[in-house]
Amino acid sequence: MRQYLASLLMIWGMAAAAADWQALPKSPPIPKDNPQTPEKIQLGKQLFFDPRLSLTGVISCNSCHNVMEGGDDDRRFASGVMGKEGGRNGPTVWNAAFHSVQFWDGRAKSLEEQAKGPMVNAVEMGMPNHQAVMERIAAIPDYRTTFAKVFGSKDALTIQNAVKAIAAYERTLITPNTPYDRFVRGDKKALSTQAQAGMKLFGEIGCTSCHSGPNFDGPPLPEGQGFFQRFPTYKDNEYVARYKLMDDKGKAAATGNEEDEHLFRVPTLRQVALTAPYFHNGSVDKLPEAVRIMARVQLNKKLDDAQVAQLVAFLESLSGGFPKQTMPQLPALSGQTILKDR
Amino acid sequence: MRQYLASLLMIWGMAAAAADWQALPKSPPIPKDNPQTPEKIQLGKQLFFDPRLSLTGVISCNSCHNVMEGGDDDRRFASGVMGKEGGRNGPTVWNAAFHSVQFWDGRAKSLEEQAKGPMVNAVEMGMPNHQAVMERIAAIPDYRTTFAKVFGSKDALTIQNAVKAIAAYERTLITPNTPYDRFVRGDKKALSTQAQAGMKLFGEIGCTSCHSGPNFDGPPLPEGQGFFQRFPTYKDNEYVARYKLMDDKGKAAATGNEEDEHLFRVPTLRQVALTAPYFHNGSVDKLPEAVRIMARVQLNKKLDDAQVAQLVAFLESLSGGFPKQTMPQLPALSGQTILKDR
Repeated sequence: MRQYLASLLMIWGMAAAAADWQALPKSPPIPKDNPQTPEKIQLGKQLFFDPRLSLTGVISCNSCHNVMEGGDDDRRFASGVMGKEGGRNGPTVWNAAFHSVQFWDGRAKSLEEQAKGPMVNAVEMGMPNHQAVMERIAAIPDYRTTFAKVFGSKDALTIQNAVKAIAAYERTLITPNTPYDRFVRGDKKALSTQAQAGMKLFGEIGCTSCHSGPNFDGPPLPEGQGFFQRFPTYKDNEYVARYKLMDDKGKAAATGNEEDEHLFRVPTLRQVALTAPYFHNGSVDKLPEAVRIMARVQLNKKLDDAQVAQLVAFLESLSGGFPKQTMPQLPALSGQTILKDR
Repeated sequence: MRQYLASLLMIWGMAAAAADWQALPKSPPIPKDNPQTPEKIQLGKQLFFDPRLSLTGVISCNSCHNVMEGGDDDRRFASGVMGKEGGRNGPTVWNAAFHSVQFWDGRAKSLEEQAKGPMVNAVEMGMPNHQAVMERIAAIPDYRTTFAKVFGSKDALTIQNAVKAIAAYERTLITPNTPYDRFVRGDKKALSTQAQAGMKLFGEIGCTSCHSGPNFDGPPLPEGQGFFQRFPTYKDNEYVARYKLMDDKGKAAATGNEEDEHLFRVPTLRQVALTAPYFHNGSVDKLPEAVRIMARVQLNKKLDDAQVAQLVAFLESLSGGFPKQTMPQLPALSGQTILKDR
């Protein structure tokens, strides 16, 4: 059934192709049980930037998903507490709100679920458990007050509420005003001739089979229903060994199901020019090479340099367009560190 | 001569005492060779927040001097690349612009000089040398453009210019609107009765001998001329051993001069409620205990609990008052990481 659906969607994607360019909506899907409010978003921003939610007090959500850069960390693998390294490239937080599942293997069904993971991952924020996270938060009077204000005075200080606030903030991290979006909305000067040629080519050669929809991560699906593709699809080429594309079992590493081997959630291409290095294993340093590889291992096509340059120009038009943000001020425990337990 | 000057200043400080409360000026001293401009400040803010100036791409100036918290990191010792730890407590960057020398041992004569240090310190940002820092910056087209705009098109990309920009940003990190400042400027409701009692006591018992002036770090002195005090002064008490106050030779560790042993630059007390743990070695977790220790080892006075509570209330009135800031957006190298050299 899942395979059938994927095939259907692939056909949908191909049909949609170049004819169906969509600008990013001005708002992502908002779950019914976590409505956006300004106070909740502000609390989520504080938590997102608060390194005291990590064991060492050094790593915040923003450390690996730096909203001041392209929403990631410029590194091959993310670096957590005490310099420990993860095994996958940190995806951008920008426009993650449009994904129907999170993580490269789609193992979290929502931004809320995703936010729980890194806090207690030993190579990321390194906290022993979520209770320890909440004890840090609960130690800070202003956080206690804000949680009560946002979530009601009874039992407000829960990990579920903390990740709801973080997710609410992340749902503001969208870029509906990139050059591409402005072009699609009618500003024909927003894209260079080169980028427009790349856009046409992007549809023609079939990139839109997977990177379809307004977020270039597949068709909009209900929360929790991921859009996965096998990567690599074509293995008889020099890239597979050179960039170790078969080493990571992808979704199968999370589910244990053989049929999930090398399935990955189709990542957004928004901000792709700002999120090198590339792929789940961060093995490719430069975007032109990443484009060449994708064409070869997913579409079985060899691109010439001119085509690669056009596609890169188009992909660059999907980047930037960041909204201005104020810095959050993080509340503190007066006259006392909250890191004394480490 | 230096000792004589210090004595004179101490007398000045004592005379000034409670009678001479000063609000923080609305601008810190600005060096003639580094005038403030909006473009330079903005560039400095980008550099201050840019973790790519560190070896691993993880540590920025803001990691240890977090302007979203109290300007420090809430930790005993700062944590640099790969979780390495330094040996002294990270001082707040807020109002550092008013210090006439920088670092606990005063070894940098200016904010500009200070900013050079951590970049190439193996346990902080860990870069092999300043040239490597500038290569990272020079790799990013928007930085090249901005440096040329701010510093002129010829030879703009120098470490000296980079730290000038960072220092210009840091000179905006001042808090002239704390409750204390508002009180001194005439808003008599800005301080609680408790805090006012603490303020009086702070003058009477002699805290102002050292923590004088508008920044509570001694009298304003020309750049490069530090205001140092010996810490601890009185050693016949239980605190010296308990908190290992004799382990760090202070200024002598930098100069090699015996007469500098245990001399430290008098730190500001602004933001002190937000910068636990305390002292150069971060050995004291809580502000009331820090107050008790300071009275005993510097003034040879034993305070009762009511006095400590009053002084803490006063010190809390020196904290907060942060200006709203926008987040900088960090420029990037399109389609390419700049961390590939690590």
